[in-house]
Formats: sequence, structure tokens, C-alpha cells
Amino acid sequence: MRYAIGVDFGTESGRAVLVDVATGAELATAVHRYANGVLAAHLPAPDEDVRLGPDWALQDPADYLATFRATVPRLLADTGVDPAEVIGIGIDFTSCTMLPTTADGTPLCELDDLRREPHAWVKLWKHHAAQPEADRINELARSTGEPWLPRYGGRISSEWFYAKSLQILDEAPAVYEAADRLIEAADWVIWQLTGVETRNSCTAGYKAIWSKADGFPDRAFFAGLDPRFADIVDTKMSRRVVPLGTRAGELSVEAAGWTGLRPGTPVAVANVDAHVSVPAVGVTAPGTMVAVMGTSTCHLVLGDRLALAEGMCGVVEDGIVPGSFGYEAGQSAVGDIFGWFTATAVPPEVHDAARREGLSLHEVLARDAARLRPGESGLLALDWWNGNRSILVDVDLSGLLIGATLATGPADIYRALLESTAFGTRTIIESLEAAGVAVDRVVACGGLPDRNELLMQISADVTGREFEVAASAQAPAVGSAMYGAVAAGAASGGYDSIQAAAAAMAAPGARTYRPDREASAVYDELHREYRTLHDYFGRGPNDVMKTLKAIRARQARRLDASPA
Amino acid sequence: MRYAIGVDFGTESGRAVLVDVATGAELATAVHRYANGVLAAHLPAPDEDVRLGPDWALQDPADYLATFRATVPRLLADTGVDPAEVIGIGIDFTSCTMLPTTADGTPLCELDDLRREPHAWVKLWKHHAAQPEADRINELARSTGEPWLPRYGGRISSEWFYAKSLQILDEAPAVYEAADRLIEAADWVIWQLTGVETRNSCTAGYKAIWSKADGFPDRAFFAGLDPRFADIVDTKMSRRVVPLGTRAGELSVEAAGWTGLRPGTPVAVANVDAHVSVPAVGVTAPGTMVAVMGTSTCHLVLGDRLALAEGMCGVVEDGIVPGSFGYEAGQSAVGDIFGWFTATAVPPEVHDAARREGLSLHEVLARDAARLRPGESGLLALDWWNGNRSILVDVDLSGLLIGATLATGPADIYRALLESTAFGTRTIIESLEAAGVAVDRVVACGGLPDRNELLMQISADVTGREFEVAASAQAPAVGSAMYGAVAAGAASGGYDSIQAAAAAMAAPGARTYRPDREASAVYDELHREYRTLHDYFGRGPNDVMKTLKAIRARQARRLDASPA
Repeated sequence: MRYAIGVDFGTESGRAVLVDVATGAELATAVHRYANGVLAAHLPAPDEDVRLGPDWALQDPADYLATFRATVPRLLADTGVDPAEVIGIGIDFTSCTMLPTTADGTPLCELDDLRREPHAWVKLWKHHAAQPEADRINELARSTGEPWLPRYGGRISSEWFYAKSLQILDEAPAVYEAADRLIEAADWVIWQLTGVETRNSCTAGYKAIWSKADGFPDRAFFAGLDPRFADIVDTKMSRRVVPLGTRAGELSVEAAGWTGLRPGTPVAVANVDAHVSVPAVGVTAPGTMVAVMGTSTCHLVLGDRLALAEGMCGVVEDGIVPGSFGYEAGQSAVGDIFGWFTATAVPPEVHDAARREGLSLHEVLARDAARLRPGESGLLALDWWNGNRSILVDVDLSGLLIGATLATGPADIYRALLESTAFGTRTIIESLEAAGVAVDRVVACGGLPDRNELLMQISADVTGREFEVAASAQAPAVGSAMYGAVAAGAASGGYDSIQAAAAAMAAPGARTYRPDREASAVYDELHREYRTLHDYFGRGPNDVMKTLKAIRARQARRLDASPA
Repeated sequence: MRYAIGVDFGTESGRAVLVDVATGAELATAVHRYANGVLAAHLPAPDEDVRLGPDWALQDPADYLATFRATVPRLLADTGVDPAEVIGIGIDFTSCTMLPTTADGTPLCELDDLRREPHAWVKLWKHHAAQPEADRINELARSTGEPWLPRYGGRISSEWFYAKSLQILDEAPAVYEAADRLIEAADWVIWQLTGVETRNSCTAGYKAIWSKADGFPDRAFFAGLDPRFADIVDTKMSRRVVPLGTRAGELSVEAAGWTGLRPGTPVAVANVDAHVSVPAVGVTAPGTMVAVMGTSTCHLVLGDRLALAEGMCGVVEDGIVPGSFGYEAGQSAVGDIFGWFTATAVPPEVHDAARREGLSLHEVLARDAARLRPGESGLLALDWWNGNRSILVDVDLSGLLIGATLATGPADIYRALLESTAFGTRTIIESLEAAGVAVDRVVACGGLPDRNELLMQISADVTGREFEVAASAQAPAVGSAMYGAVAAGAASGGYDSIQAAAAAMAAPGARTYRPDREASAVYDELHREYRTLHDYFGRGPNDVMKTLKAIRARQARRLDASPA
């Protein structure tokens, strides 16, 4: 028997899975909760007195290595699998989660003289304190007409690599100076396992503005941000970017000791949690969108050629599977909107019904909402409670609900919110198709699809496309294991391509939701109204959402400034 | 001492008040709940088997007379006032509440052969089953360009006199034929007290399309609706319309027996509850708007001349106080919107806080919302949960909430809803002022102003005008008593005009809310945004609200039609 191990590094914990390489069957799973979790208020002991600013989010790199020690030996113990049967390892990570290290890979936060310096720690993907730096990057890129900007929907996020790096330079130049390397945590983990520093094409492409054709932004651009930033690529990164599926190296003796695996076990280059889900659910060719649906939704599609679809998060050659262009789009709140509704606007009788019937609020609301036909709520919503990622790329947009009457009830609103996210997805699909990127069907994963059947049926009806729900609840870890099997190669009992691995190892979908023709016809009408509102409030004819946010910010500041 | 009695006939009960004519002091109040209340499902015993259709709302005229018997003797007993000291009586009523009678005033529903015929009963103001007839009236009036239509905002309501009368003709021609009179319940009650049939200028003007200058619509118009309807005015109504403040007659011996008052006591012509509140709160001249604020809001203003302000419910000479043009406008939901919110969208923790602190939900929400500065909610709403009465006159408009984020809380929404109704009021004031009708300040009554201080302050800030809250919680009954004193006249110890009566008898306002300059400046900005949305969704550029209602109606019908 041959097995592969995938490790998925999430926000609060890491999850390892042991997979049968021949069939993809998941034999065992182990989860490790990070001891220091997300550092949002202060540094960990003994330095709790070092406070963090608003919007900061750090992590401790030691938690990542502890994840290997805590999970992989357990997989082996639980299954009795012989380490010699484990032919490869892959990992995936949140991104852009990045850290400064020395030339030998030691995190700066592990140096005694930098331990109390927040900028020496890992900046987690949701560290949002680099907005001023992102603003500078965007302003300069727009003014100089950087050719790469349209590939990213015209806007670089504060979550991404250069905004975070530039914040280190701005606020802690000594840390920036001391950093021999600035590196994605994903790549750093692989470095720790193998002793080899690599840079994977996925994080480089989506977060560090790399493309296979043009490389990184040029020196002049970086110099325009700050002369000290001019040589960041050559002095602190690497121009050698390797495609996904490449073998990064082999497990070192030290890492073999952590994991109980054999030294020399092949290790794949790192991947990103959303992107690795694509082969995990069996998608390795154009035509099928993978929707990773949770608090937000990430949409991933493959294409044969470079197209500039409006409002993408990014398009990267080799960015999802080697040999294709990977398109990424996103909805910045999906499950979060439904969660906001149940936390904020559901009256006691629905809570009581849920308690009485032993159901969740979502289950009660979805059941009641399922009794309504499309359009019967009389409501329409714009799903912008957390701004709009794709296709408008505008964080200052906000949520809208229209059509309320004195007869409107909680299930009406709940259904309208579900529908609004489906309209958002359809808008993204239409943008891709308008650019020539086909989206014939959708495979959904990420947790939300398993919890909300009504959302799946509505999504199928609204988009007029089949929505297949992926079988595995842990797609990222399974995808990483697939890449581990590819790193091993066919000669070692694995596969020579992710296409071959996915063909053998991806499980068929658990359920498929097919569009209902009559419902789709009503949703066609409603989507036209959605698009009219989308363009009216989202493209400038009426900037009321921005005006409201500006007035709100001004008034909140006045309040802070007034005597207590 | 001289006293006057006012009786206010509401929807569920009648309320009588005994007032000191010299000072306006309220000495005693008595309330009588109608035995048969609102008949919405079936006729009263012994005819419960006669079911009523959807949107029907009837009353039993016997309940009105019972109100006199139940309340007036109690006022006298409670105060020890000598009936000889009661110099006059006035009444006010809901409107248009109307009934068919014989030539001697006997309600048709009291005839044995018509008792089981629903159309023989009183049609209450909120009987909404005459919409098809209202549609015919509006269609014909528009096509023939009736000159009176603009005085009513371009639309005659299904609640008004001819729609209800035409429904009788359509559905029960025998009842229509048997009716020697079709009459407002208000006027019918005065007829019962005095033996004299009168028609007051208020209900005639606002509900039966009468004007002092032009009289009623012409015969050709009525004939156009139905040849049998051509002579309704001459055969079933009266062309003699008398101004408010006129003495209708004197208390008959029979009515003296019901009330314990002396036969011959002067009785004023009837009035309408909202309109009689105007002198009750001391307003008898142009410049001050009276806002009767409850589940909905009715706005009343006096003017020196006829102006066609957009979207009024009506403008009637002598319609509010004799000698002035009375302008009426309305917001079809105000307290109803706040009530909808607390019933539908407030989470358990707010309910728990209210229970813990012994407050109402409204009190908890208003307290939390009061901590926000204008604009700090980040939200804006259109107050159209029940359509828009003024100034758009469109029942198919619906509610809108914009600006929601994941941080939006219940108090944010509650405040935005309060603000939206204030923006609606400001829109009405601006329509009046654009037509040359001054609104320098507002006096608010009707119950809601006493219960919601935050709403009053917001209303002052949004409109930039002082909002004075009327002292009496029973303004209509007090206003009716004032008219009773005017019916008596100065020679009998009363007054010769409602102006003189109000000057002596109206209590000064309980509290005044003055606009805060800084808050008003922010609300000026927000009201601009409100007006942009108001015109965009209300005047045709985007008909999405009507589209949503049309789809909803279609889908609800399909559901009804499908097999169970």
C-alpha cells in the first residue's frame, strides 16, 4: 500500500490527513490547535506587555512546526501505517501569511534581540494594518500604469505580500534590515521540512505580483515606493519560482524526527488552502468553477489562456494547477452575512422554535425559507455587507435590502440574503464568461455547502448551472496529499501529474443540485434587477454607500474626540 | 361654571371628555369599548354564519349610540357637574366610515330583511375591499381630466366615500336601491343626537370630493362610472354642506335620555379625529403643521389660499377650521414600521435587556440609538414599508435599507428607521413650502410623541423645525369639546369662533424639541441622499419595487393554484 500525507494550515489550527494514494480514501485525520492561535492584542508570554495596534493579526511560527509533531505521528499510530509506505507529503496554507527570517530560515521573532518587536513575527493573512502601504502601492501603480494591475482587478490588497513588507520597512526599518528573507509561511514550512528554500507559483502569483511571462514588478516600481525597497526581490526574495506539483526536496533527518516519517520522503512545494481544493475535488481542466464557500467565498477556475475578466482577485499561470491559467475571484462575505443575520436580526420566536425542535437557527430559517417560491419574499438584497471583492473590487460598498413591507418576516429576509450571494456568484460567472473563460458547472466545498442545502439549490437555480457538493469536508488537506503523491512521482508509486493524481484520488461529488427551469426563469428576472442595482450603487451613478461610510467615519471620530 | 363635552369615536372604542369651557381643563374621561368592535370575519350574533370577504371591515352603528349611554352619564356622575352647566357637545369620528340608511336615518342593517346583508352595515375607514371601484374612479377621472383630481394628490383612495358607495351598488344593488341615504357615520351620529341631518365640510371635502367653490363632481362623471350612480349626490346625499363650528341642532329629548344632558343642549356638526386635533392643540392659523403621529402619521396645515402642493391627501376650504384652506398629507406607516421592527427583527438579547430593566423594547432600542450621533449608524432607509402616501401617492412602493455592514446592530437599524420617517416628514414639508404653504413649526400629538422622545428630537433635527408635543393625550375629544363650545356660542357662555375657543381652551405644549444645529447640518447631507433615493425608486427611473411586488403576487398566486 502507498499513502500520502497532506497538512492544511488554517487560521486557528492545522489539520493532517493520511490518504490512500491509489483511491484517495481518507484513512485518518488529526487536528492540532495552535498554542498561540491568532495574536491580535499582544505578543505571547513572556512578552504580553507588548501590545498590538488595531487591525493587527500575528502568528507564532513555532505553532506550525508543532502541528507536524502533534499530528503526523498520530496518523501513523491510529492507522498502523508503516512510514515506509508514506511516499510523499504536501502542505497548504492561509495566504498571504508571511514572515521575516535570517538567511538560514530562523524566524526573526525567535532571535532574543527581536523577540519583543511585533514586526519580527508572522503577519497572518488577516493582518489589516498595512492599508496605508496598500494605498501607496495602488496609487503608484495606477499613476505609472503598471501592466500587471489589471490582472488583479485593478487593486492590490492590504493583505498581500508587498503591503505587509512595506509596513515592516515603514514602521520597523531595523527589522526590515535584519531580514535576510521575507517569505510566505507556506514556503517557510517547506524549507523547515526539507532544508531547501523554494517559492511556489501560487503564492508568488496571487500575492506577490509574479507572472510566469513577466516575472515580478520592476525595480523602478519598488524604488518609487521607497528607495530602500527597490531591491526587495533580489535581496529578500527569490526570482526562482517553481510550479505547483514540483518536488521541493526530501524530508530532512530533523523533520523525520518530528513526524516519525522516513528521512528522504518527497515533499511537494507549498500550496494555498483555497487553490489546492481545486484538484482535491477533481477539477484539473477548464470549464468547472470551484467555489470554496464559508464565511466568504473564493471562486477558482482554470483557463487555457490569459484573459482579463473584470474584477478578478488575480489570474496566474500555473497558479492553481500547472499548465493552466488560474483565475481567482471572491465574495468578501457569504456565510458571514447569514451569520450576521442570525446574530443580529432574528426574533426570539425563531430561537425558541430552534430550541424546541433541536435545530440550529439556520436550519429553522432555511426550512421556512424553502417554503417560499423564488420572488415570493418580495425582497432583493445586494450582498455587500463586507464590501464587494469581485467584480467591483470596492471595500466601501455596503449591504442593501429592498422590498420590505409590514408583512416581511425573518424567513423572507433570510431567503433574500441567500439569494443575494447567489446573484453575486452569477455576476462573477458572467464576468468570466464575458472574457471567454467558460464556467459550465460549479463544484462547491468549504463547509457551507454541507450545512445549507437551500443555499445550494438557490445557487443552482440562480446561476442556471449544476452545483455539485464535494465529498470531502477536508478538501485542502486531501489536495495537499495529492500534491505529495505527485512530488513522489509515478516511479515511486505516486503520479507524474496532478491531473493523474486527481483522476485517481478525487472522490465523486456527494450530491448535485440541478437548476429548476421555472425557478431559473424567475431568477433571470430578479438578477436583471440585481444587476441594475449593482451597477447603480457600485459603479458610480449613486455613491450613497461611500457617502454614508464617510459620514459615519467622521461622526465616529467626532465622538471619540469629544470629552468623555 | 360652564362645561362642554367632546366624544371621539375611534376604531375600537369611543372616548368622552368633560372640559372646562373657560380654561380647557379636562375634568373627566370615560371610555366605552364597542361591543361588536371591528367586524372583519363575519356578522355579529345571531348572524355569525354570514362570512365577510378579505379586506372587509364593518361596524355596528348601535355601538356608537351605546357609547353615549355608557360614557356621558359617567362623566356627570364622576364630576358632579350639573347638566345645566354643559353648554355644548361636539363629536369626531374615524373617516371615511359610512353607512346606508332609510330616509329617517334608520341604518339598513337594523331592518329585518337586510340584517344578514353585509353591505347594509357600516363600512369602517379601513374596509379595503373597494379597491376595484377606486381603480375605476381613478381611471375615469384621469381619462376625463377631472379638475378636482390634483387636489387629492392625483388619486382617490379605496377608503373614501364613492369607492365604498360604488361597491354597494356593484355587489348589492338592492341595498343601494334601498338606501335613501348614504352618509358618514360622523354625520349620522349627529343626526341621531339632534334629529337633524347635516353634512360637515371636513368629511365632505376630504372623502366625498366636495369643495366650497365647485361643489361635488358633476353628474356626468358619476354616470360614467355607472348610469345608476349618476344621481348619487341628489338622491342619497345632500348638496348642503356646512362648515365646521356650525351648530347642527340641539339635543333631542330621546338623546337627552341617553346622556343625562338637557334637551336643547347645542350640538356641533361632526368632525374627523385627525382634523379636530388641530384646534385642540391650539393651531387655528397658517404656519404650524399638526402631526398626528401613531401607527401612521397625518399632517395637517392651514393656508390662506388654494395651492396644489404635490402629493397631498386633500386640500379643502373650511376642511380643518372655517375660513382657511386645510391641507392634509400622510405617511402610511410610522409607528407601524417601528412596531414591525420590534416584532420581526430584534434579537433575544434586546428582549432580555428589556425584561431585566423593566423597559419596553422601544425604550431599550431608543436609549441605545440615542447614543449614536446622526449618521453614525451608517444606514439610510426609505420609510415605505406600507407604501408612500405623500408625496408620491403610491401604495406599491416598499421599504429599503442601505448601508448595512457586519457591524450593524439593532440600535443602528432602529435609529435609521426613526430617521427615515423624519425624512419622509421633511419631504412633505418641502412639498408644501414649494407650493407656498408655510410650515414654520410642528405640533405633534397622537400618542407616539409621548412614547418616543428620540423620534421627536430626530424629527426636529431632520426638519430643522421645533417640534412641540401637545399636552393632552386625547386631543380629538378635547377638540370636539371646543367645537361644542362654539356650537353654543358666546351668548350662551361659549365662543363665537373656533379661533376664540382654541385661544382660551388649548393647553400649552408639554415639551418642545429644538433642532440641534450640528445635527441638522448632518441631516441636511443625509436628506439629500434620501431625496435622491426617493426620486430614483419613487418616480420611475427604477421601478424595482413594483417589479418585486408584481413577481411576488404572481408567485403567491401560483402557490395557491398548485395542488396542496
